[in-house]
Amino acid sequence: MALTIDIEKKVLSENDRLAEALRNRFVENDIVALNLVSSPGSGKTSLLERTLGALNEELRMGLIAGDVQTENDADRLRRAGGERVRALVTGGTCHLDARMITKVLPTMAVDDLDVLFIENVGNLVCPSSYDLGEAMKVVLISTTEGDDKPLKYPGMFRRSSVMVINKIDLLGTSDFDMDRVKANALRINGDLRIFEVSCRTGEGLDTWYAWLKGLVAEKTPLAISEES
Amino acid sequence: MALTIDIEKKVLSENDRLAEALRNRFVENDIVALNLVSSPGSGKTSLLERTLGALNEELRMGLIAGDVQTENDADRLRRAGGERVRALVTGGTCHLDARMITKVLPTMAVDDLDVLFIENVGNLVCPSSYDLGEAMKVVLISTTEGDDKPLKYPGMFRRSSVMVINKIDLLGTSDFDMDRVKANALRINGDLRIFEVSCRTGEGLDTWYAWLKGLVAEKTPLAISEES
Repeated sequence: MALTIDIEKKVLSENDRLAEALRNRFVENDIVALNLVSSPGSGKTSLLERTLGALNEELRMGLIAGDVQTENDADRLRRAGGERVRALVTGGTCHLDARMITKVLPTMAVDDLDVLFIENVGNLVCPSSYDLGEAMKVVLISTTEGDDKPLKYPGMFRRSSVMVINKIDLLGTSDFDMDRVKANALRINGDLRIFEVSCRTGEGLDTWYAWLKGLVAEKTPLAISEES
Repeated sequence: MALTIDIEKKVLSENDRLAEALRNRFVENDIVALNLVSSPGSGKTSLLERTLGALNEELRMGLIAGDVQTENDADRLRRAGGERVRALVTGGTCHLDARMITKVLPTMAVDDLDVLFIENVGNLVCPSSYDLGEAMKVVLISTTEGDDKPLKYPGMFRRSSVMVINKIDLLGTSDFDMDRVKANALRINGDLRIFEVSCRTGEGLDTWYAWLKGLVAEKTPLAISEES
């Protein structure tokens, strides 16, 4: 057991070293890197499809779409008009790590980007431990999941700066309570910025777009995710 | 890297050894052990609440509810009438393993059970690698997730014997296509037995209950999950 833990520490510190190099590169080039995390099915790909479609003229956006298997997400995102979309198939690994990002970056022109979205593997546990050099983690949760998710997966909500609550068009079809999920999330992390959206109807997305454009305009919050 | 892989192999073979001992114990005592896996929010706890409530008089059922943090699920399940419910809080680990099950078993009377449900951590990746001595894995997917999940997380669907499609009351509120999800799942694993249910309205659950009772009556399929 002690050996296993040592190995895990070593893997993580190697990851931190690579993540730091990535972060420096992103900061130097004024790239806002966002690491999107959630359960499978919360709507990361849908949110990114919408965002690429809506802001394609205004922002230079790149995207790395991680998946255990298949390039389905990357294919969807390419169709949505993302010029610089890369698929990152982990082949069984349950999270992205900084080494994978480091390897994929040379295959795409990133340095003139305004925003680099990194869509992590759908998993609320493991991706929380791997820094990818991002400015911040954005955690998605949908109204068709349980509203106690922040309490059950506290690591992820603690390490995220933003929570996007998706599928608000389906509110009322289950016991999901909007006030309760927000209270649960803020109990874990009082600094969370919260968006309520429906990627299906488009409701609430304007606020998300405005926030993204604000991030790019200000280029200030680039070192938020480091305390955890 | 080679060292990391060796350690992983060692952890898994230790797990297999413990899982084999668990399986022998379950088989000797005619206990049908089912390992329920899914994304967070697909409805494992709801399915178990319903099942405990409906079959409490007919079957002796025990339940181990795994979660990364909180005993919320176990609390819900205790309220549903499960006499023998144990919470297994992994404290950050993204899956249950055979050692955890081995440790929790002495705290509950299991040997006279008909069915032991093991609710795994919500995660479609890591739990697929850890045998818990179960007769079979039951994978849940809900109609509010993407219908390409079987292709994106093939390991889990390949190693499961049963797929429960939950939230059929919400069909039509998204692009989820029932025929497509079934075709995708059967492409990965042609032997999957499929149930379509709504744990909210109760639709389809009678077929699930009948199948469970059949399993207990026959006690035949106790060694299915071993090929993977």
